[in-house]
Amino acid sequence: MTVIDELLAAAERHAADFPFGHLQRPPALGVAILTCIDARIDPDKIFGLAPGDANIIRNAGGHAGEAIRSLAISQELLGTREIVVLHHTDCGLHAFTTAQIRERLAASLGPDAAEAAAAIDFQSFADPVANLRADLAALRASPLLRPDTHLAGFIYDVTTGKLTTE
Amino acid sequence: MTVIDELLAAAERHAADFPFGHLQRPPALGVAILTCIDARIDPDKIFGLAPGDANIIRNAGGHAGEAIRSLAISQELLGTREIVVLHHTDCGLHAFTTAQIRERLAASLGPDAAEAAAAIDFQSFADPVANLRADLAALRASPLLRPDTHLAGFIYDVTTGKLTTE
Repeated sequence: MTVIDELLAAAERHAADFPFGHLQRPPALGVAILTCIDARIDPDKIFGLAPGDANIIRNAGGHAGEAIRSLAISQELLGTREIVVLHHTDCGLHAFTTAQIRERLAASLGPDAAEAAAAIDFQSFADPVANLRADLAALRASPLLRPDTHLAGFIYDVTTGKLTTE
Repeated sequence: MTVIDELLAAAERHAADFPFGHLQRPPALGVAILTCIDARIDPDKIFGLAPGDANIIRNAGGHAGEAIRSLAISQELLGTREIVVLHHTDCGLHAFTTAQIRERLAASLGPDAAEAAAAIDFQSFADPVANLRADLAALRASPLLRPDTHLAGFIYDVTTGKLTTE
């Protein structure tokens, strides 16, 4: 039995007693949360969210540039007006540089991977605070986001659960 | 009090009794889940996940192309070997075309937004099943993902909670 088989069994149990069929497409809280893919980040638990409350955008590092398409859709089609950027401690993109990631992929997967990886900025970062500030600045500067957006950024400590504000 | 203020108050309560400080960076289940930003999609609830279990990647539509950077990092740095792609019914990118999204952003935000939006493929889709199949094919074809990846794709019905398999 693979992990995916186990996930499917869980999904069947979830659907068997399903209380969320009335929810509408626009998030009830009018907020979008951009965070990392890290398994320790659980935006629902951290922020006390229920299904239907928030758009959640997640990519490696919680990188703003890659999230612009999704955030513009969240604002224009789904009516959100507040954005939270949630980065975290012990991020893989702080632990490894883009050059190291390219080398590892090339070693694991061969020359086609090396070529593809050379074309990708993996968005590693040396300074977590500067990285968060740069992402917030990129969102404030984007012509695709509303100038009246309420924007805030935090770093989540994966060992304590505490947020620090930038 | 803004929504973000309320989220911060929730985060303080979450950190006050924090049982997850022992979790490690690699996901316990060795799985990455790619899904949409839609507020009704709660991967933890659907799949019965706990913090630390899975990398979660979310962008508008659960689009594979935009997720390659994150999935490659998930596999190479964080050791995942299975990928679930979870699309859903009533997606905003099925309801609106890329042309319509560009027009709306231009009308809402002006000429700078129009110019920026013209450069973005918003990844709208006409046929949800064909769209899921195309995303699965893109992941199978990517040189940056492992050839032994166990890959599965599903469409989540937001009114019933049920998954259909492609």
